[in-house]
Amino acid sequence: MRGRKWWMVLTVVSLVATLGYVEGVLGHPRLHAASRPDPANRIFQAPREYHTCFIGQKIDHFGFYENRTFKQRYLIAEQHWKRDVGSILFYTGNEGDITWFANNTGFMWNVAEELDAILVFAEHRYYGVSLPFGNKSFSDAKHLNYLSSAQALADFAVLVQHLKATIPGAQDTPVIAIGGSYGGMLAAWFRMKYPHIVIGALAASAPIWQFDSLVPCGTFYSIVTQDFKKSGNCCSESIRNSWAAINRLASTEEGLRWLSSTFRLCTPLKTETDAATFKGWLGETWVNLAMVDYPYKADFLQPLPAWPIQVVCKYLKNPKLPDKLLLQNIFQAVNVYYNYTGHASCLNLTQTATKSLGIQGWYYQACTEMVMPMCSDGVSDMFEPQKWDFHTYSEECFKNWGVRPRPSWIPTFYGGKNISAHSNIIFSNGGLDPWSGGGVTKNITNTLVAVVIPEGAHHLDLRSNTPFDPDSVLQARLLEVHYMRQWLRQYHQRSHRHPK
Amino acid sequence: MRGRKWWMVLTVVSLVATLGYVEGVLGHPRLHAASRPDPANRIFQAPREYHTCFIGQKIDHFGFYENRTFKQRYLIAEQHWKRDVGSILFYTGNEGDITWFANNTGFMWNVAEELDAILVFAEHRYYGVSLPFGNKSFSDAKHLNYLSSAQALADFAVLVQHLKATIPGAQDTPVIAIGGSYGGMLAAWFRMKYPHIVIGALAASAPIWQFDSLVPCGTFYSIVTQDFKKSGNCCSESIRNSWAAINRLASTEEGLRWLSSTFRLCTPLKTETDAATFKGWLGETWVNLAMVDYPYKADFLQPLPAWPIQVVCKYLKNPKLPDKLLLQNIFQAVNVYYNYTGHASCLNLTQTATKSLGIQGWYYQACTEMVMPMCSDGVSDMFEPQKWDFHTYSEECFKNWGVRPRPSWIPTFYGGKNISAHSNIIFSNGGLDPWSGGGVTKNITNTLVAVVIPEGAHHLDLRSNTPFDPDSVLQARLLEVHYMRQWLRQYHQRSHRHPK
Repeated sequence: MRGRKWWMVLTVVSLVATLGYVEGVLGHPRLHAASRPDPANRIFQAPREYHTCFIGQKIDHFGFYENRTFKQRYLIAEQHWKRDVGSILFYTGNEGDITWFANNTGFMWNVAEELDAILVFAEHRYYGVSLPFGNKSFSDAKHLNYLSSAQALADFAVLVQHLKATIPGAQDTPVIAIGGSYGGMLAAWFRMKYPHIVIGALAASAPIWQFDSLVPCGTFYSIVTQDFKKSGNCCSESIRNSWAAINRLASTEEGLRWLSSTFRLCTPLKTETDAATFKGWLGETWVNLAMVDYPYKADFLQPLPAWPIQVVCKYLKNPKLPDKLLLQNIFQAVNVYYNYTGHASCLNLTQTATKSLGIQGWYYQACTEMVMPMCSDGVSDMFEPQKWDFHTYSEECFKNWGVRPRPSWIPTFYGGKNISAHSNIIFSNGGLDPWSGGGVTKNITNTLVAVVIPEGAHHLDLRSNTPFDPDSVLQARLLEVHYMRQWLRQYHQRSHRHPK
Repeated sequence: MRGRKWWMVLTVVSLVATLGYVEGVLGHPRLHAASRPDPANRIFQAPREYHTCFIGQKIDHFGFYENRTFKQRYLIAEQHWKRDVGSILFYTGNEGDITWFANNTGFMWNVAEELDAILVFAEHRYYGVSLPFGNKSFSDAKHLNYLSSAQALADFAVLVQHLKATIPGAQDTPVIAIGGSYGGMLAAWFRMKYPHIVIGALAASAPIWQFDSLVPCGTFYSIVTQDFKKSGNCCSESIRNSWAAINRLASTEEGLRWLSSTFRLCTPLKTETDAATFKGWLGETWVNLAMVDYPYKADFLQPLPAWPIQVVCKYLKNPKLPDKLLLQNIFQAVNVYYNYTGHASCLNLTQTATKSLGIQGWYYQACTEMVMPMCSDGVSDMFEPQKWDFHTYSEECFKNWGVRPRPSWIPTFYGGKNISAHSNIIFSNGGLDPWSGGGVTKNITNTLVAVVIPEGAHHLDLRSNTPFDPDSVLQARLLEVHYMRQWLRQYHQRSHRHPK
């Protein structure tokens, strides 16, 4: 049970992990970066020059007993801004170091000039260096108490007002929120809760409906499965059959030794609990592959080839093989993900669950408000059947953090499916992205619009333009810019009619 | 200084005091109440039968460390509800015992049948019996930490969802928020922040712009002054001249004794500080009279005649009198307010600042987020010149509560003047009401509409129909019902097109 639970939590965490690390190696500020395709890594990268700044924020926006402040980091790039006609594109930072996001959101750098925009990347409290209580921030539930989406949005609101008040000429510059994944949810929610601060939002791959029972809990794994199904004959069947094969082997000590050695695990499996952890790690690998099934070679925690699931699936053509042969193929498949360069001497089951603050913070958030029910049935998906078990989830949260999750708070606070009163939000989703199952993929009104990218994985549209982008993502980016221009035009027309 | 400060705070409190006590004596459930004009008190009163219920609410909606709940009281009247076509009218309780508001919001009882409505009156946390920590709720800043508008709105959201989930057939019943004064702000903010929960809001006499520098700080006292100016020749001049007269008398011990005896004060004035408190008390009296300058005899803390300022002004026709004669007239004037029935044996300077929880709660709120700058100049108003002094205000708050006010939080969180992205809110204001200066008195869009009642004092429109109502308030109530019907019609049309 422990191992399965672990997997369920890790799955949620993969939302972080991937976001944090996609393009991670490329992700350092590169003032020398070329603005044309680079034949070596095949990624187009616009120059990314920014300043790092800090703003004092109330630790608690919603109570007055805790009156101290902390320093929130934000990055700002003003080189393309034009007063009077320009805009501010405001990245609503999610669960990680903001420099990663700034360097992994090539779209914003690509459109900055076209939209005469100041780029701002705001770090989410409790991530990166924006720690309300320094190295005590994660010490207990009391110090973690101010980690929530509502507090983060309030930080963003205060920051935008500060920028408009302090950048000469920016007082009336319209602001558009942009974010991906959890950051995409924040962008959408920022527009919903603070429409006086942002004129619109681009919410990329934002699973705002992956809560409570707004979508079936099985959708997520079903989409992962579809990705493997589409990428190779019998690929998903091979994975589906692997679980029973592992279970059979894991039932004996010899089998556990064989698994440890075949998968070149850094720490050998010793118990059934270890085997459950092992299965969780495999499951997470398939999920991560689905999220980053990009059409070009890309680096993240490990470098990956273009369309990595197709590469993986080359090893998984025969689901009917005897256990050991099947699992040797499974090893070859995960080895693509963990050891594409061939440098890894062993594979580490805790590898994707890094000890970084980002991971800690997201665990806590998943144990409080970001409760996303997940389940699998082994039929419409390739995973072992696993019911959504809120009770166990809650117990685990209480044990780890001393808090109880509140699974219905997000729909109560942000509206669930009943959001038609809002306006000016683009919800973009990739058809390959398992998170699209909890996303908005149909227009709700003519100002709450859905953009679907059939060939897209997790917020492909927010990544830099590359020569390898499928047409659908190019179209999506054009459409997104079209909507943003429209909001800006409407804003300027209104301001012109009612000069301040 | 102390006395003046006290006055400034009390002025804010009068928002409570009046709301709490208007119609207070009538305000107990009267199952025998007649549904036609009652010649004795001249108030039309519809029958008011309701059930008293409680709901468990999280003490902290925005943090997870404090996971306990408290019991929030609400009152519910279902006798006029019709399934399928009906509505829920939801009173967003403000700073007092909810039974007072239920019994002082005759408008809702008057329209319940017409709108086939369930009436719900939700008590605001920290008021009435809805105390998060029982009798410790006000013991210190730690226990008061969860008293805020955002927490109150979250309570309301959770309560509406609970009602819809538990009243058979109410799942899809549309909800309209209604409130007056601070409750009116809450109604408007409820629609702004939770448009998925309420389809619209009637915000009566809601000074949502009485914050920061959204309106000039002098507007409030200037409107009070206008009320007196209009109600009798030289009336406001008499009051304006009274301050200097008091100052001259208060400078000697004999003068203080004379003032104490002439004004029949229960506790004689002994120091200059006492004299400042005395002036504060007088100022508050004029303010309260402006707020409740209703066109008919009404009972509240003390019974008052119809158009009480006209009665007061009969004593204030000659501003040029020598000090003692002028102040004897001032005494006659305030005596109308405090002793209309002639039963009071002495006048009590702390009388309007009752020790009730409501008052305590509002003081705290005024010292945290509900910071409403007020000032007077003695020229455009009849008060002693008094600058808005945030520093002193903040020091006083810290001394009394251990908290610091955050004057810009309300505009940051709720949008200030930039609220045009929202919809379906009626802002009604009375021309006589000093709070109208901070209210929305012009249409913002065609769904954010202003209703102005020139002859109205503080949320006259929310009171019961009476034969003495001026046409303007009858028109206002008709218009309000017209808009509410329109929201309900649109809701039912949408539900019909998209059946759930």
